[in-house]
Amino acid sequence: MEKTLAVNAGSSSLKWQLYEMPEEVVIAKGIFERIGLPGSVSTTKFNDEAHVRKQEIVDHRQAVLLLMDELIHFKLIREFREITGIGHRVVAGGEFFKGSTIITAEVLEEIKALSTLAPLHNPANVLGIEAFQRLLPEALAVAVFDTAFHATLPEKAYRYPIPTKYYTDYAIRKYGAHGTSHMYVAQEAAKVLGRPLEELKLITAHIGNGVSITANHKGQSVDTSMGFTPLAGVMMGTRAGEMDASIIPYMLESDPSLRSAQEVIDILNKESGVLGVSELSSDMRDLSEAVAKGDKKAILAYEMYVDRLKKYIAQYFGVLNGADALVFTAGVGENDTDVRKDIVEGLSWFGMEIDASKNIRGAFGEISTPSSKVKVLVVPTNEELVIARDVEAAKA
Amino acid sequence: MEKTLAVNAGSSSLKWQLYEMPEEVVIAKGIFERIGLPGSVSTTKFNDEAHVRKQEIVDHRQAVLLLMDELIHFKLIREFREITGIGHRVVAGGEFFKGSTIITAEVLEEIKALSTLAPLHNPANVLGIEAFQRLLPEALAVAVFDTAFHATLPEKAYRYPIPTKYYTDYAIRKYGAHGTSHMYVAQEAAKVLGRPLEELKLITAHIGNGVSITANHKGQSVDTSMGFTPLAGVMMGTRAGEMDASIIPYMLESDPSLRSAQEVIDILNKESGVLGVSELSSDMRDLSEAVAKGDKKAILAYEMYVDRLKKYIAQYFGVLNGADALVFTAGVGENDTDVRKDIVEGLSWFGMEIDASKNIRGAFGEISTPSSKVKVLVVPTNEELVIARDVEAAKA
Repeated sequence: MEKTLAVNAGSSSLKWQLYEMPEEVVIAKGIFERIGLPGSVSTTKFNDEAHVRKQEIVDHRQAVLLLMDELIHFKLIREFREITGIGHRVVAGGEFFKGSTIITAEVLEEIKALSTLAPLHNPANVLGIEAFQRLLPEALAVAVFDTAFHATLPEKAYRYPIPTKYYTDYAIRKYGAHGTSHMYVAQEAAKVLGRPLEELKLITAHIGNGVSITANHKGQSVDTSMGFTPLAGVMMGTRAGEMDASIIPYMLESDPSLRSAQEVIDILNKESGVLGVSELSSDMRDLSEAVAKGDKKAILAYEMYVDRLKKYIAQYFGVLNGADALVFTAGVGENDTDVRKDIVEGLSWFGMEIDASKNIRGAFGEISTPSSKVKVLVVPTNEELVIARDVEAAKA
Repeated sequence: MEKTLAVNAGSSSLKWQLYEMPEEVVIAKGIFERIGLPGSVSTTKFNDEAHVRKQEIVDHRQAVLLLMDELIHFKLIREFREITGIGHRVVAGGEFFKGSTIITAEVLEEIKALSTLAPLHNPANVLGIEAFQRLLPEALAVAVFDTAFHATLPEKAYRYPIPTKYYTDYAIRKYGAHGTSHMYVAQEAAKVLGRPLEELKLITAHIGNGVSITANHKGQSVDTSMGFTPLAGVMMGTRAGEMDASIIPYMLESDPSLRSAQEVIDILNKESGVLGVSELSSDMRDLSEAVAKGDKKAILAYEMYVDRLKKYIAQYFGVLNGADALVFTAGVGENDTDVRKDIVEGLSWFGMEIDASKNIRGAFGEISTPSSKVKVLVVPTNEELVIARDVEAAKA
């Protein structure tokens, strides 16, 4: 039996999921949190049970060692070499990687070089890759890029209206993100609709902590709301989304506590969005509670959030010149019935009608009425499964 | 007979139009160019004739002196005091001015203070105001703000998803621009449609050197594409429009010739848009010629330009949840039949259908087919007339 690990390494975390392939059965999954920080903790889940362990974890290599130890301890594997493939999520693939790629020394160097495009993410992804290389050198390691699905963007969509040299010399262009998620939910949406993906125009709305909307034409990404970095597009938990760029130097000149343009961007990434306007939380569950209590800042944040989602979805109706379905996914998209309702009702003119009896938490599939001209779906995302499948495909 | 001047002063130019009011008859109009620069020139037009005069003009005050001299010389007025009102276009009115305002000493100070919001425009507007104050101190001077029409934006549209203090302490919000134009063409569009403006949902597309799109609900601006400054929104002749803000520090760090975030913004304002991508011209007429010759960069610039216009128009269909009509105005909007055709055909799903026989240069009124669900109109803008009317209203 061949087992594959799908790995998502952050700067102080490592999420994993162990699959039996090609059966696509999840054997176990877990997360290491606060790696290299006080209060490290690991959680391992299988058979509907969660095993939590608190112990100091100094680096990603130790986390991987602990992971293998637990997999043996819980008899999830008998020996290391049962794991024949490891898929690593890598955020930025730049223009170089247009699909999942077997990790060689050269590929790893290129991923490191691409850190300029994702300074928070790629170095952490590299930590995960290197940690597994040392412990499982014989397993096939595959990099699965968050940007690869957007490699099909037409030039008019990925270029910015800035002098050409900033594209040719500095690679400034739209790369997008959440690619594996947008690809997966589009494929699943086609199954729900009972039609081939190659016939469909879909708008996929990945609404989680990060939010991105993608226009999918016949299975291909033709536009997406994240840009050069994941700061762009709609309003998110802590990120501002698209801005009037003039605000950057204005904030810098007005606010004496700011010392560089990069510090302004840090505020737009980490202290803005729902958190910045509500002055309360970046989490939509906290926001909804405050809205229910009549908190004015929370109500404004909620209205702005839904407004910007509606604008991007409407925009992609424009890009596709109509759509067969709108697909919600990720934390908020899968679970927040108010956000879904307010978006769909706010765009009723577009031929969408929500079925209140279907628009429930944990819904799967169609949540629109039978007469809804454009279908509205909820499809839970599964980025780990895409990673495991890409490893399987790389073995072939 | 009362005469009113509508004035639009730039840093080295002064455009004017002389009206007989309340008849709204244009007696004459003209422009002073290259004020304070080598090669100053003034043009005065009346009775279908243009009188061009080349002579050194050192400042705005001299321009106004020359203007009055010419008006007398050509017998357009007999004495200065016939001009009882002067309306000045002022770009930024901030949150302070929500409508046209009689210019007092305090108002003038406030307009100067608002220069932080429009550093290129407001100081020039002030030059014009002061020059006329000295020569025609008894005429009623009225400031007509480019932002005032957008004073009705709801908070969810004018606030940015950034920490609240940047709004409360630094007034960073969406102000919009081209307000007099959007207001005027919406009023005219209602006449063309033969329906009261108070019943209509309109998308007004002011497409000139600067470009802005406004969602008009029952006569009020409810969203608009320009933002804190006129840099935001769609791609323009030399301006980039909306951006991933992360690009600002990235350009600054990558390009050794750039020394500050403000220099990056200058590039986004002056060297980007159609000019930056085509590396040819910011003028759509030049671009069309190059497109016809198969120039690849020009074709890309054209595709990006239309794409971004389509996205904003589609977006405002979302904001309004449907629209009765799309209204084109300003230089490109009134004259570029290709841009209009490509936008409308690219959004056919929205229920718009262009009538090729009506989509001609200099079209006025409906250019959509009788069966077009959403009407498409061309309405020439007339900002000077709005200014003259606002002066007339202020006299009352």
